[in-house]
Amino acid sequence: MDVGFPSLEESHIAIVGLGLMGGSFALALRQAGLGRKLIGIDLDEGARTQAAPYFDVVAADLEPIRQAHLVVLAAPVRAILRLLQGIERYAAPGAILLDFGSTKRAILEAMRRLPEHLQPIGGHPLCGREQSGFAAATPDLFRGARFVLIPLARTSPQALDFVEALLRRLEMTPLIMSAEEHDQLLAVTSHLPYLLAACLMQVALENEKMQERLFQVAASGFRDTSRLAASHPRMMLDILMTNREPVLEALRSFQQALSLLQTRLEEGQEAALEGWMEAIRQQRRRLNL
Amino acid sequence: MDVGFPSLEESHIAIVGLGLMGGSFALALRQAGLGRKLIGIDLDEGARTQAAPYFDVVAADLEPIRQAHLVVLAAPVRAILRLLQGIERYAAPGAILLDFGSTKRAILEAMRRLPEHLQPIGGHPLCGREQSGFAAATPDLFRGARFVLIPLARTSPQALDFVEALLRRLEMTPLIMSAEEHDQLLAVTSHLPYLLAACLMQVALENEKMQERLFQVAASGFRDTSRLAASHPRMMLDILMTNREPVLEALRSFQQALSLLQTRLEEGQEAALEGWMEAIRQQRRRLNL
Repeated sequence: MDVGFPSLEESHIAIVGLGLMGGSFALALRQAGLGRKLIGIDLDEGARTQAAPYFDVVAADLEPIRQAHLVVLAAPVRAILRLLQGIERYAAPGAILLDFGSTKRAILEAMRRLPEHLQPIGGHPLCGREQSGFAAATPDLFRGARFVLIPLARTSPQALDFVEALLRRLEMTPLIMSAEEHDQLLAVTSHLPYLLAACLMQVALENEKMQERLFQVAASGFRDTSRLAASHPRMMLDILMTNREPVLEALRSFQQALSLLQTRLEEGQEAALEGWMEAIRQQRRRLNL
Repeated sequence: MDVGFPSLEESHIAIVGLGLMGGSFALALRQAGLGRKLIGIDLDEGARTQAAPYFDVVAADLEPIRQAHLVVLAAPVRAILRLLQGIERYAAPGAILLDFGSTKRAILEAMRRLPEHLQPIGGHPLCGREQSGFAAATPDLFRGARFVLIPLARTSPQALDFVEALLRRLEMTPLIMSAEEHDQLLAVTSHLPYLLAACLMQVALENEKMQERLFQVAASGFRDTSRLAASHPRMMLDILMTNREPVLEALRSFQQALSLLQTRLEEGQEAALEGWMEAIRQQRRRLNL
């Protein structure tokens, strides 16, 4: 069967992985009235039970994705890598495979090895929250977010158009770049911030006798700076292990910045400190995040 | 004149420094109907003009604080240290001096040198925002926040009761501790997070050619982790310079945590990484911040 590309409303969409991201995507599709048939796949029975009311079909195996024009892989990076091995036995010829993985080089490499009759596209929705699982899913998660798309050399313009149109209908902004660029950028904007948050928590937890008081005096600054420390470990481990070099590079840059700061503080270089703090402040304010 | 302690409603309250904190405190007092006479002091004419509608008296010099039962010093730490030099020439005998400084050892030392007829109490409202100036002031800033109080050995129970009652009426929770404990705790919960946020911004700004893309892919994680980088440099510089040893100690602990993490990542110690991430996550979730 060559499925071709029906309208967004008429398409059959399979979502593999019914956690926070896959679940939120399904809810957003339902809210927007997109996808005539939604197929949900998850190994976990609890997830399938929670998700069932929002899907036409739920299953524990990949068999039903044969019916899909678009197959979305929403799982931690290395689970996606495992799913990509042999997915050609299930996906229909011409079907689009879009993933939601947080790092992209390893996934794009695996996608390049898929048979030519599939239309793989790398993807990464730039949104998330610390809660995980279908129970935390919300149709609003993606709204207003940017979505990185990484087409392969062989991805047809029609397949890319289909995905871009779908994202725009869900009020996301597609952002096309290479897997290498994505992984380098995210090492700085996402993976490094996670590691800083986790190490900050570590420092806060080290002094046991100050513990109780410490969290009594922790205000919004600590709350925000440490927020990412609650990210899902399995997801984060996959990110770190598939993006080691860019993450280590970002860590080295950070350690250099910290060392310079430490020296200036030890030596009481007030003018240098203040100039630096002022420049950083202005740049941060300019971001308007 | 020995001013004694009238009711919270009947008291005269002077606020020295009409920025975000002093301004918000005045607005909160007005909203709660506390303070029969509010006196606002600031060297900056613009601040006085903005604040004037909410005060009975505004002035550029300390002269009018003679009339106050309570004098609040709301300024960067080293500005408070300068204000404390010679304040006995203005404050009435028996008047309470409460400061809002972000570090406490240096201020408490200066307070201990004040004449016995004054009632100094160290204070630190555990709240804030990145905006500064009276224009950013809001009566809600303090509501629900904790407020560290550091009485001196000589502070009378009546003076402490007065301040505690005032804070409670403004819906703050007083937290009594020593200056040393405060400064050590805040080095971890506030000053270190600021430095991490600033160094994260520094790393993000280093790669000029990735710049534009970088901030396009920066999502809520980067936003929150870098938020404190927009803190006011003058305020932060005073904090760092008056709390150097605890801050350097926190920095060293952080660098150790980061180095260990780096080694584990370089060596691909997945089990150790995952165990650590899981423990950190659970602790962060337990905080309920």
